[in-house]
Amino acid sequence: MPNQPAAPDGPATANRFERRRARTRQALIAAARRILAETGESSASIQEIAERADVGFGSFYNHFATKNELFDAAVGDALEEYGQLLDGVTADIDDPAAVIAVSIRLTLELAASHPEITQIIRLRGLPHINAATGLGPRALRDLEVGKASGRFSFTDPQVALSAVGGALIGLVQLASVRDAGAEAGVNMAEMILRMLGVPEAEAREIAARPLPELP
Amino acid sequence: MPNQPAAPDGPATANRFERRRARTRQALIAAARRILAETGESSASIQEIAERADVGFGSFYNHFATKNELFDAAVGDALEEYGQLLDGVTADIDDPAAVIAVSIRLTLELAASHPEITQIIRLRGLPHINAATGLGPRALRDLEVGKASGRFSFTDPQVALSAVGGALIGLVQLASVRDAGAEAGVNMAEMILRMLGVPEAEAREIAARPLPELP
Repeated sequence: MPNQPAAPDGPATANRFERRRARTRQALIAAARRILAETGESSASIQEIAERADVGFGSFYNHFATKNELFDAAVGDALEEYGQLLDGVTADIDDPAAVIAVSIRLTLELAASHPEITQIIRLRGLPHINAATGLGPRALRDLEVGKASGRFSFTDPQVALSAVGGALIGLVQLASVRDAGAEAGVNMAEMILRMLGVPEAEAREIAARPLPELP
Repeated sequence: MPNQPAAPDGPATANRFERRRARTRQALIAAARRILAETGESSASIQEIAERADVGFGSFYNHFATKNELFDAAVGDALEEYGQLLDGVTADIDDPAAVIAVSIRLTLELAASHPEITQIIRLRGLPHINAATGLGPRALRDLEVGKASGRFSFTDPQVALSAVGGALIGLVQLASVRDAGAEAGVNMAEMILRMLGVPEAEAREIAARPLPELP
């Protein structure tokens, strides 16, 4: 009933309350993301996290039962943001081999534009490969589409996902200790496509295509 | 001068002191390895670590300047132990493709026989891929031997190392969330050999060979 005004203390108040509640939750997640990216550790106290988030200590427990629950949500939040970003950039690409090559190469570029996400992928990404949100399920979707069409050949999609996800995190790690350069992303994309059964010459061509830009 | 008896407070005393010192260092490293395997975190206090190691709090600083230095040494110690173990098992294998396939598959078996090392590989192994000891330099050696002989084809050995190491850690991660079974190791070994340029049929044959036993 769009024309009916909200009663006092009715839906409008509830919405204000819900909005404030969502803002507090998001502030805690953002603080945990920053702490993870800086330290890789979840040893900060809840008091420190609440101060960093600029929320009251007591409100922490309105949102999370434990500190680990918050840090887990923070990693999930960063990986989901990145997954959506890659979905946008690769939306017009039909070939799953090309989607995977672009995703690998853009992840290297991410270090400059989104250092917080890069650090979280490197330090905390691995256990989230098998999570229900983030990069894992998107990569699994691309792998299964490619297997169904005969583009890829492998036996177990979960093993293939572990190989692709692990190799990608390995590349991010390499880029953290030396200037890997865009060329490293091309090399890695070519190796991963070969691993998935794409013939050598074709893997090389797909890996070296011009790269769409990150928004 | 082997026949000369050691003077009191001479070499024998020094050796006793050195042995005790080495034991204390090893006790601290062993405690840190257990803590890492249990929690994946280095947030335990130095007091807690010293108690766990059954050494005095003060002796910590005779060996390590910081807690991070100890945890780094503990990860290095576990990975070096595993590297030596794999060197022993693969000593009679000449083909670097077969060495890599065996190493990948044995790493899955390690979860049962050496759960502490498995956990440390999974939770802390990644930043050590590029370290001077442990699994990284051994894998790099096998990759470079294979590239020099034409067995493998890839552009950048460091990128190949990141791919192989990352995929291996991804497999250990998968085994921690589901019963991956020995078959997952065979699948992963086959994919990694393909990635390194071994032809498909040969990669499949090498990956499925009978496995030497862990000691």
